[in-house]
Amino acid sequence: MSTLSYEILKQDKETHARLGLIRTRRGDIITPYLVPVATLASVRALGSDDLALLGVQCALANTYHLHLKPGDELIRKLGGLHRFMNFPGPLFSDSGGFQAFSMGFGREHNISKIGNIFPQETECHETSHMSLRERKKTGQTKDAKNENLTRITDEGISFKSMTDGAWHFLDAETSMRIQSNLNSDIIMAFDECTSPLSDYDYTKKAMHRTHDWAVQSLHHHDKSQALYGIIQGGWFEDLRRESTRFIASQSFDGIAVGGSLGNCKQDMHQVLDWVVPMLDDRPRHLLGIGEIDDIFEGVQRGIDTFDCVSPTRIARRGSLFVSPKAGGCPENKFRINIKAAKYRDDELPVDPNCQCPTCRSYSRAYLRHLYDAGELSYFRLASLHNLYFMLRLMEEIRESIRAENFMKLKNKWLKKI
Amino acid sequence: MSTLSYEILKQDKETHARLGLIRTRRGDIITPYLVPVATLASVRALGSDDLALLGVQCALANTYHLHLKPGDELIRKLGGLHRFMNFPGPLFSDSGGFQAFSMGFGREHNISKIGNIFPQETECHETSHMSLRERKKTGQTKDAKNENLTRITDEGISFKSMTDGAWHFLDAETSMRIQSNLNSDIIMAFDECTSPLSDYDYTKKAMHRTHDWAVQSLHHHDKSQALYGIIQGGWFEDLRRESTRFIASQSFDGIAVGGSLGNCKQDMHQVLDWVVPMLDDRPRHLLGIGEIDDIFEGVQRGIDTFDCVSPTRIARRGSLFVSPKAGGCPENKFRINIKAAKYRDDELPVDPNCQCPTCRSYSRAYLRHLYDAGELSYFRLASLHNLYFMLRLMEEIRESIRAENFMKLKNKWLKKI
Repeated sequence: MSTLSYEILKQDKETHARLGLIRTRRGDIITPYLVPVATLASVRALGSDDLALLGVQCALANTYHLHLKPGDELIRKLGGLHRFMNFPGPLFSDSGGFQAFSMGFGREHNISKIGNIFPQETECHETSHMSLRERKKTGQTKDAKNENLTRITDEGISFKSMTDGAWHFLDAETSMRIQSNLNSDIIMAFDECTSPLSDYDYTKKAMHRTHDWAVQSLHHHDKSQALYGIIQGGWFEDLRRESTRFIASQSFDGIAVGGSLGNCKQDMHQVLDWVVPMLDDRPRHLLGIGEIDDIFEGVQRGIDTFDCVSPTRIARRGSLFVSPKAGGCPENKFRINIKAAKYRDDELPVDPNCQCPTCRSYSRAYLRHLYDAGELSYFRLASLHNLYFMLRLMEEIRESIRAENFMKLKNKWLKKI
Repeated sequence: MSTLSYEILKQDKETHARLGLIRTRRGDIITPYLVPVATLASVRALGSDDLALLGVQCALANTYHLHLKPGDELIRKLGGLHRFMNFPGPLFSDSGGFQAFSMGFGREHNISKIGNIFPQETECHETSHMSLRERKKTGQTKDAKNENLTRITDEGISFKSMTDGAWHFLDAETSMRIQSNLNSDIIMAFDECTSPLSDYDYTKKAMHRTHDWAVQSLHHHDKSQALYGIIQGGWFEDLRRESTRFIASQSFDGIAVGGSLGNCKQDMHQVLDWVVPMLDDRPRHLLGIGEIDDIFEGVQRGIDTFDCVSPTRIARRGSLFVSPKAGGCPENKFRINIKAAKYRDDELPVDPNCQCPTCRSYSRAYLRHLYDAGELSYFRLASLHNLYFMLRLMEEIRESIRAENFMKLKNKWLKKI
């Protein structure tokens, strides 16, 4: 029996959107789904009891971070990631390639995977467990710009650890070994993530490297884990198509779209328009993306799973999600800023329509107070809300596909009627 | 009907220890009990759902802190403290006098209420929401030593706010109004807390001021709230006895022992030996004290309730409680330091005999990793453990009084057999 199977429960008639079921050795994932990110074996500020409370189906951990801290060998010794973080459901891990990029080239050039300036609120991967303010304090932002933190060859990626300053080396075999040590259920092939600053020639070179590493990953990976291949090729149509053909031709259990997604969100949509129609029915993951509009655009184009730290990250910074009924709209990114003075005496919950544990128990005034006072409980209550909100949105999206009104839902949220 | 009643369920035969029941307008408190501290309307790092999970009977909020942030008028407007922090059970508030002391004289002279150097791990009141490191960064420790932050007259206490730098004034009437705004169930009379550095004459003067303020507090307090009087008098026997006689002669609903408790724990025991035998059967609270040995010594001397931030504060700093069976003893203060390298691969829970949510779910290795990585989830999981541990200890103490073997339990823990 395969380590992963995928079934389309309902195909949208108007779009590529689909309701699906991914079966893993540790349980099922009903898709479309936004996979919460547990960078360092913890969805930031939340415990595994919170994940159970929110009904989180699966989570994604970061190979790069866990390799450095506490070390994947230690996690193996302790019985694997599920036992370590007390999460029984399916776990994804990424390949480490993106972090080697974002910690190196990305930081050096102040660039992210969709062309924005680093670091930014909407940037979707955890680049460090430190906040910008913390990095500024320790002088790490300055250093990073003036130093080569990454060296990439056909063999693999050398990178200087932000944790201990030592040089580390990742290649396909190492990435597969680390992910085997983690014992996650869905793992990613090792890849090189290019940036929007990379030119055609470099992006092509990197893509071919990624293809070689994809084959090596297939060879070296732990066969009890499901392996996703990663499509690269930047925002060059012929490269994306070539990469899609190659990755899709390999015996991966699923396909992920990675790498540079252009200079703006429209470029990202374009990449998906090139790539997804060329894919067969294996599950499709869009790496490191997950704002509300991105989710709708991705689902419409046939993406099954997303991962993004944004819900919990923006929560920690005071941005809390509100639905359209509570004033959320594309212009405000469906967020209120709880720091605002107007919430000082606001007795309403963050979103009066929300049934999350935070909205059921506390007022905006209380959350604003906790934020203002720097109370630690703020971070959990805010993260619970934002994560619940996104998971509820994913549920609404799934319901809409089942009820054949996905585009209606999308237009309601994005006001494109 | 009185706003508070107290019943002795069982009087220990060997000691002054007693099993009791305090009935308040918001429910009962079975004593002896360590009241968790919710300085700024949040037991640090925990939500009200966590308090419910742990079966917390009651909590204590700080008048001084809440007056400054977010403001007691705002809390009143928002329906009071219970609604604000979503805690339905009985709430204590202190009078603000101690904080005016600890933020002023205490900080100026690096002194705490039992003579130790400020700030210290065992110091039991929250002196600030900032850590020592944070205060050092902002230069506030230096400033504090070189500046008078408090001015005390017979009228009341003027203090410079650590929050906004402005001067504030507290007197009995103001303290009663603030506590009425908070709408807590058990409030404290306004008092002046002296330090172990205060001489006889000053301590006497302050005590008389406190007695005047006690009478004013009785006059001004919201009669729907239960009011405790506070015994002062430092570590001078005649003053403590005089204060006890005076406070006990007034129509307070309960009696608290406050102020300087001498230069060492033995001095504190001595103060209790002077004071408690002079008291009638109203409930007795020992302010700001609550390490494990203190609890046993206090209960033995007839104290019913304690309050202390120590369990959650030390948790945040990496100190986690372990019972005698797991190696806890007076010498290590029943604590392990989760930062220690030896816990790196330790698969055991913090305390293998503990049934708290953290010990049921995670290993020492995981908690050490979270601490080491600065993960926010650490603070909650560690606080849950330490608070559960103390509440379970209080339960054991109550059971021992019921079973007539309190001293046996005390000797087992403190190894005084």
